[in-house]
Amino acid sequence: MTTIADVVTRDIRFPTSRTLDGSDAMNPDPDYSAAYLAIRTDAGDGLEGHAFVFTIGRGNDVQVAAIDTLREHLVGRDVEELLGDMGAASRVLMTDSQLRWLGPEKGVMHMAIGAVVNALWDLRAKRAGEPLWLHLARLSPEELVSLVDFRYLSDALTPAEALAILRAAEPGREERIATLLELGYPAYTTSPGWLGYSDEKLERLCREAVADGFPQIKLKVGADLDDDRRRLAIARRAVGPGYPIAIDANQRWDVADAIAWVRALAEYELAWVEEPTSPDDVLGHAAIASGIAPVRVATGEHVQNRIVFKQLLQARGMDIMQIDAARVGGVNENLANLLLAAKFGVPVCPHAGGVGLCEAVQHLSMFDFVAVSGTMEGRMIEYVDHLHEHFVTPVVIERGRYLAPTAAGAGTEMLAASIETHTWRGAHAEATA
Amino acid sequence: MTTIADVVTRDIRFPTSRTLDGSDAMNPDPDYSAAYLAIRTDAGDGLEGHAFVFTIGRGNDVQVAAIDTLREHLVGRDVEELLGDMGAASRVLMTDSQLRWLGPEKGVMHMAIGAVVNALWDLRAKRAGEPLWLHLARLSPEELVSLVDFRYLSDALTPAEALAILRAAEPGREERIATLLELGYPAYTTSPGWLGYSDEKLERLCREAVADGFPQIKLKVGADLDDDRRRLAIARRAVGPGYPIAIDANQRWDVADAIAWVRALAEYELAWVEEPTSPDDVLGHAAIASGIAPVRVATGEHVQNRIVFKQLLQARGMDIMQIDAARVGGVNENLANLLLAAKFGVPVCPHAGGVGLCEAVQHLSMFDFVAVSGTMEGRMIEYVDHLHEHFVTPVVIERGRYLAPTAAGAGTEMLAASIETHTWRGAHAEATA
Repeated sequence: MTTIADVVTRDIRFPTSRTLDGSDAMNPDPDYSAAYLAIRTDAGDGLEGHAFVFTIGRGNDVQVAAIDTLREHLVGRDVEELLGDMGAASRVLMTDSQLRWLGPEKGVMHMAIGAVVNALWDLRAKRAGEPLWLHLARLSPEELVSLVDFRYLSDALTPAEALAILRAAEPGREERIATLLELGYPAYTTSPGWLGYSDEKLERLCREAVADGFPQIKLKVGADLDDDRRRLAIARRAVGPGYPIAIDANQRWDVADAIAWVRALAEYELAWVEEPTSPDDVLGHAAIASGIAPVRVATGEHVQNRIVFKQLLQARGMDIMQIDAARVGGVNENLANLLLAAKFGVPVCPHAGGVGLCEAVQHLSMFDFVAVSGTMEGRMIEYVDHLHEHFVTPVVIERGRYLAPTAAGAGTEMLAASIETHTWRGAHAEATA
Repeated sequence: MTTIADVVTRDIRFPTSRTLDGSDAMNPDPDYSAAYLAIRTDAGDGLEGHAFVFTIGRGNDVQVAAIDTLREHLVGRDVEELLGDMGAASRVLMTDSQLRWLGPEKGVMHMAIGAVVNALWDLRAKRAGEPLWLHLARLSPEELVSLVDFRYLSDALTPAEALAILRAAEPGREERIATLLELGYPAYTTSPGWLGYSDEKLERLCREAVADGFPQIKLKVGADLDDDRRRLAIARRAVGPGYPIAIDANQRWDVADAIAWVRALAEYELAWVEEPTSPDDVLGHAAIASGIAPVRVATGEHVQNRIVFKQLLQARGMDIMQIDAARVGGVNENLANLLLAAKFGVPVCPHAGGVGLCEAVQHLSMFDFVAVSGTMEGRMIEYVDHLHEHFVTPVVIERGRYLAPTAAGAGTEMLAASIETHTWRGAHAEATA
């Protein structure tokens, strides 16, 4: 019997605040970080399951401590049994009643569960010798349904409805796999639009984005309306009329402010407005969506779980669902989110960037294309060109598209040297480095 | 200048799972715990600010680690300045953008902020020589409004509206203070109703509750419908017709289940149904409330912040607001919650029990009576008779009422001996103890 021998965690931080990469209206100085784990077995095959929670610096140690509490559910477990029923594996973590109290199903503890679930999927895909997207895309509709926790969803999505969605997408799976391997998946870029960048840098990066073949760019907004107008004017001139520009307010506004601010920017032709207000405010999103239509509302990177996504769809508060690979309860809960989006006919355009989020979430969009929504129409994955060099299988972007990964696993394994170099040893060690 | 010299944290756990105290449909074996902190100054007056996050066991160490991350915002700060503007003190913690990423405003990190805010209030009240409820009740409406973070609330409650509510309650404050000191505040008891208790124990405790003068009892439900019917029949016979019995499902149901289950129990005359579904499901609560009317819906012990409370009120998903002293961002955010409840005309009946939640939350209800709602009509504070002996100023219950505390502080300081005895030193130490 192969068992889980150990779960090793690391507090990994990158000093990105020094260059203002990633600066926006709510997050002026992020230090992109990963609360990282590796699941080791006694198989002797060298395969490990790696994953992480993405944070932006302080508190990454708390996130690591949360992952550590889950060790006892893993160490000593039969690997075949655990990986053979990933629905059950996820439920064991989600229903630890003492740990559940710390959420429930939200925040630090929930993200920790998500990272463990993702690490188990990385291990399973590696053992199967397949990239995660392909591995998921070849599961039967029945097995996929067994992965989802339908608790609190049944008023919007039942197991039978989920099964029907997946069965409807079964024909053509192999064709779509071939399409992905040939053409990849569309990407859009946020790299030009960080608030901390100068106008000159903004303009140059906008032109480069178009030249590089990206079908859309995104700008951070929400700190100052005059600045936003100036920066949007620069961007619009740089990319030309008709080219899609999305904006991202990073939760900066109350409802009335959001409506007024977006209306004041509407002349710049907005592809969507992202995170106009608190990710917890379903009714606020609905009011904003109806107040700024036809400009669309996108949200999700901070949506805590499937229950909030469900309501955003029920209330028509979200025109575009932006799942995040490391915010919710891992692949399993994101499968629930993809099914909800399919049920409500809303496109999924994942949040990415940070550390490793591009590497992770591309698998979910590609799986969605093959086995759930069956389309790339109106879909794109965010792309930010930071920190990919630290991953064993970094994303490959060509002509504005994510190439489909072919290496086995979930894409979430960092290079051993990067782990070693960027393990956080406290503020003092950093200051004297 | 007096400064904050240190913030000391402790992981405190009580092995309550051995007796099934606190057992319900979602939490079969809680070990009531406190992620505890003490704020020390260099004043030399012996006064410290104490508070805690209540958890139910595993993960309490993660909660302590989260509190530890906030030390750097406190140590070395000028105490007069910090305590003199508690609105600013709270905002500093809430707007640490790197820590905010771990929520935002929810779960482990948010509860940690709440504990620190509460500890600062404990210190401030002790320095003023007043019990917290009285200290708050004598602040001007303007100062009270300055404590509230109105971000994401302005579509439901503006600072001007909050000020109007507080000003309307200014006349009669001193009279209501005298009333409280004379009569105390109504309590209801959950002690009879834990799922793990035998029928005989249930019946005996129901009779005792009536004899002790409590105006209401509450039973845990939701694990098995037949059991619930049997236990409610026993309870109803024990307390007699007309006596209020509330039930608590602890998030057990989906929307349709909740409606069917509660309808099946309606013959037992239900005072309210508590936590029928996920605390995140605003729209679900609204559907349940309209599906089970005239039975009322109560919720709040797991409501993560003021933004979700706002929506529960907007959507008419909550007939009774059950604030919890240790779930949200402390006294300041609970002041926002009390103001929202007053605006929407919903009574506040706090969640309590656990470790120290009764000691803490009584101050908020008493403050609400004096300075916000101005009434005790339809209001009660939950009471559970566990673990009070560990506090320096334990609650005093007489004839089913909380007597108004007169000792200085927020009630949240544990006895040094209890802290020492119950500090968790790991599962191994516990097993061999």
